[in-house]
Amino acid sequence: MSDIRILHETDLRARIALDLAAIDVVERAFATLAGGGVEMPPILSMHMPDLNGEVDVKTAYVPGLPGFAVKISPGFFDNPAKGLPSTSGLMVVLSTETGRVRAVLLDNGYLTDVRTAAAGGVAARHLAPEGARRATIFGAGLQARMQLQALRLVRPIEDVAIWARDPEKARALAAELSEEGLRVRACADPAEAAAFGEVIVTTTPATEPILRAEWLRPGQHVTAMGSDQPGKGELDPECLARADLYVADRVSQTRTQGELRAALAAGTVQNADGIPELGDVITGRHPGRTAPDQITIADLTGTGVQDTAIATHALSAFD
Amino acid sequence: MSDIRILHETDLRARIALDLAAIDVVERAFATLAGGGVEMPPILSMHMPDLNGEVDVKTAYVPGLPGFAVKISPGFFDNPAKGLPSTSGLMVVLSTETGRVRAVLLDNGYLTDVRTAAAGGVAARHLAPEGARRATIFGAGLQARMQLQALRLVRPIEDVAIWARDPEKARALAAELSEEGLRVRACADPAEAAAFGEVIVTTTPATEPILRAEWLRPGQHVTAMGSDQPGKGELDPECLARADLYVADRVSQTRTQGELRAALAAGTVQNADGIPELGDVITGRHPGRTAPDQITIADLTGTGVQDTAIATHALSAFD
Repeated sequence: MSDIRILHETDLRARIALDLAAIDVVERAFATLAGGGVEMPPILSMHMPDLNGEVDVKTAYVPGLPGFAVKISPGFFDNPAKGLPSTSGLMVVLSTETGRVRAVLLDNGYLTDVRTAAAGGVAARHLAPEGARRATIFGAGLQARMQLQALRLVRPIEDVAIWARDPEKARALAAELSEEGLRVRACADPAEAAAFGEVIVTTTPATEPILRAEWLRPGQHVTAMGSDQPGKGELDPECLARADLYVADRVSQTRTQGELRAALAAGTVQNADGIPELGDVITGRHPGRTAPDQITIADLTGTGVQDTAIATHALSAFD
Repeated sequence: MSDIRILHETDLRARIALDLAAIDVVERAFATLAGGGVEMPPILSMHMPDLNGEVDVKTAYVPGLPGFAVKISPGFFDNPAKGLPSTSGLMVVLSTETGRVRAVLLDNGYLTDVRTAAAGGVAARHLAPEGARRATIFGAGLQARMQLQALRLVRPIEDVAIWARDPEKARALAAELSEEGLRVRACADPAEAAAFGEVIVTTTPATEPILRAEWLRPGQHVTAMGSDQPGKGELDPECLARADLYVADRVSQTRTQGELRAALAAGTVQNADGIPELGDVITGRHPGRTAPDQITIADLTGTGVQDTAIATHALSAFD
């Protein structure tokens, strides 16, 4: 009837993991983005205030990959009260030869979780101190777990501090992860948590800054991945002024919905000209971190190239 | 494994036709658009010049319908040389309760063809002379057939004139349709064709005007539905000045990719303020045609509300 592949969440979870292969495909996609030839239009975003819901659509064409993805990501924020996750959605993979639908990946957001965490792994691989053993995670949700997992794939993390707005959740996550053989502590004081890690990853939906510039220490790398909407932001705008290097996943996105937005508004960053993107650092167009005592920040808002990368990677696992 | 409904093109063709029910659901969607509460973001459009391809994504939330659609429409213009149609694609229906995917309609563009022709039927129902028996169709492709079919559902059409850039195609279509019991003639002269119909429908991908203002006669209604991209346009910009009434499916779209674009550029329309939309005429907010000798124009670029309307209509046929 059709040669269109329909893959369900359970199929995808069985074959696609957050592993070095996922980090590598996302890294290559960012490198291609820096090299040119990529098409990545602005995100289509529709808000439905009377439903307390929204839907985002992202896409990108990445030359060299055999397909391109269109991802549909709904967020319906009354769902938890109904016993359902807020987010769900799917990815459609279209052929770069004919535009015809090759596959529908009914992943309910799983592949987004993987590619989001994989981007954190890419950022840490290129910007975090080489031998970093201590990590700090802000937040205690799914991405807190997954960002730490990605980090451990690229750095020899042994000790972890966790801070979350709800201390109980931080303690529960610390207990859960300690069972996996890591030393993990929950910190009630965010300043103490921030001081601990050589790498800090912020994974919260915060709308007021949770990481202050005066807490940062020389040599630290910060990945801020929680802000993906114009109303969000995790870093005190002074952090960007304090850092020796600020890297965006995509400047056109971070200036409107990442940490750069508030920094531009506050004037701690004067303008967005010349800000390097993650792909520039991967490809060596920008040197990245050039001294051990530098403070670096990676600002990740989530890009269509990651979706196309993870979707074609997932589909190839079923060929 | 999943309660997501997957429907293929053959399923959809078997149950969903271009009929009065389809015209009615599209009409109601336009009425809701005029009444407020609809969310319809700008079209996401990605061009891939090295592939000679593009993809458009449209969506709209229409209060009162049980779901909303996200439509992915690729156009790959080297496909005909490979024996494939240029366009394909699918619609995804998401729940307005939870945002979760309810259905994937693998229609290869069939539902778009239906809702596009249905909008032509809606425009004719509200703007064409009541007893119109003569129609003129510019173009000889699939929408030429379907727009005529929609027109016959709302007006007692008996005689048809067809003009196409390729006279052979016009003759072939005239012969094909005559067999169905209509009187249909192919016209080599577009002026002669334009003079014939009480209703004129232009259905071409023209990038230079094919209908001249001096050919229009009092009392005619024109539906221009071929232009759906910034580079296209079927009507001489003077047509809009000559008309007593110009109606857009959505002004924000026709000003950038419909007939209004060239008219604004040429100055035959001074500005877009106050231009009525199809929904305004349907709901009576705008009186529409107020005298038999008026010339009216409907400019249809294709809207997300039509996609949500036809997709939820289609899905209801399988409940």
